[in-house]
Amino acid sequence: MTKQKIRRVVIGKRKSEMKEKLNIIKVGGGVVEDAQSLASLLSQFSMLEGRKVLVHGGGRLATSMAASLGIESRMVGGRRITDEEMLRVVTMVYGGLVNKNIVAGLQAKGVKAIGLTGADGDVIRSHKRPLKRIKMDDGTEQMVDFGFVGDVDKVDAQLLVKLVEEGIVPVVAPLTHDGEGHILNTNADTIASSVACALAGHYDVTLTFCFEKAGVLRDADDESSVIPCINEEQFQQLIAEGVVSGGMIPKLENAFEALHKGVSQVIITHADNIDGSQGTKIRN
Amino acid sequence: MTKQKIRRVVIGKRKSEMKEKLNIIKVGGGVVEDAQSLASLLSQFSMLEGRKVLVHGGGRLATSMAASLGIESRMVGGRRITDEEMLRVVTMVYGGLVNKNIVAGLQAKGVKAIGLTGADGDVIRSHKRPLKRIKMDDGTEQMVDFGFVGDVDKVDAQLLVKLVEEGIVPVVAPLTHDGEGHILNTNADTIASSVACALAGHYDVTLTFCFEKAGVLRDADDESSVIPCINEEQFQQLIAEGVVSGGMIPKLENAFEALHKGVSQVIITHADNIDGSQGTKIRN
Repeated sequence: MTKQKIRRVVIGKRKSEMKEKLNIIKVGGGVVEDAQSLASLLSQFSMLEGRKVLVHGGGRLATSMAASLGIESRMVGGRRITDEEMLRVVTMVYGGLVNKNIVAGLQAKGVKAIGLTGADGDVIRSHKRPLKRIKMDDGTEQMVDFGFVGDVDKVDAQLLVKLVEEGIVPVVAPLTHDGEGHILNTNADTIASSVACALAGHYDVTLTFCFEKAGVLRDADDESSVIPCINEEQFQQLIAEGVVSGGMIPKLENAFEALHKGVSQVIITHADNIDGSQGTKIRN
Repeated sequence: MTKQKIRRVVIGKRKSEMKEKLNIIKVGGGVVEDAQSLASLLSQFSMLEGRKVLVHGGGRLATSMAASLGIESRMVGGRRITDEEMLRVVTMVYGGLVNKNIVAGLQAKGVKAIGLTGADGDVIRSHKRPLKRIKMDDGTEQMVDFGFVGDVDKVDAQLLVKLVEEGIVPVVAPLTHDGEGHILNTNADTIASSVACALAGHYDVTLTFCFEKAGVLRDADDESSVIPCINEEQFQQLIAEGVVSGGMIPKLENAFEALHKGVSQVIITHADNIDGSQGTKIRN
């Protein structure tokens, strides 16, 4: 190896070691629909130091707004069926009501936030989900048309990095677009993971999923039974023991996928602890 | 004058002559609510060369969405009274439904658009309008509380310039914020003028107001009676002759104010002619 080659390798290593930290915080609809929880979240988020991104849901508000408009919300396997009318509702509620109020709230706390859907700056491109075979509650399987729901194809990290390096904090709504003029409804956990994976090439990323529980619980009824750390081996064991089940399985699978794709750390915790000091740490 | 001073003056002049052109197109609610007009607008706007910004309204859609939610729209002197319920509606409709569909539509035409309200990136700061003495339709004067309506205090041109120089096209919704966590409803013409004035320090700005008429008409019933050019002297004459009246007076006053604040040219034209080749040119 020539001297020049050695130098390049060393510089390469140093560069990756020197990656700046970036926090991606995902908060669900339960947090954003309640004024007090939202105020607490914005306060915590504004105090979080360094580079950061906020991803929000808003499903419960969409459901209540749809109800006010006489539109019925239909869910299959915990996922919303998004027909044309419902797409208008989620575009209004996620992209307008929730996103802009979070952005204005953060500005008031000195955070230079900018609200984005996947369509803005072509940040998140997706395709309309094809019919999907889904196991229904009664055990039968059905082909389900989820409607205007987008499965993520690609995240453009470049614009996000430019904004972040300008000291701007992206606040991302769970909406994407197909590049052909259509907004699509995309699960907020998926948005958070996709953005985290795309930014992992540029930053040392910690992805924190905040919800109403203190973390992954050993006993669902005991908030003090948080499992502090889970790796993949332990995850399989927890499934076998029946400790982890239902909706927590895809959430954790999602977390491990993010780790495989370069995200440094995933944390599942209560919305009161977005600094990740408590809750469950997911590690490879 | 020393040689150095002369050199500075010359360089100063050269700099201002070298300002890049930028088009700001404002389209009203009548254009964005109709699928066909919107498609035509997006097509024209995508073909407009060079640096550009789009500002949109959405009042008619807000009125119909409010009606669907059982909320009555109250207008005084052509301006919307924005109570708390109506603020939620305009935040959803302007910031979500209209803005995101325009952005997705432009992306489909290869325009790297990014949707912004005044809260995003703290681009447009405003204050809640105090009670205002308004002449009512019956000729009496009343103190009117417009509610959550924002009068613009400042536009941060820096972020807009950065985006534009990255090849990104800002699509601005008629919403601002007060820096204390509140979204405020702001007239789209005012947004367009304020943004134009702020950007006039950086670009050679043409501001084009698009609406349902071919321009300022000599005879309101004759679309072929467009007055091709109006300066301030002619404006006063047109008012004296009764040719220009009603809502067109503040629109033109607004246009002259923009010219005084450095905007190069203001055009009032039909939404089918956003390139400004037809319509009424307003000049100092």
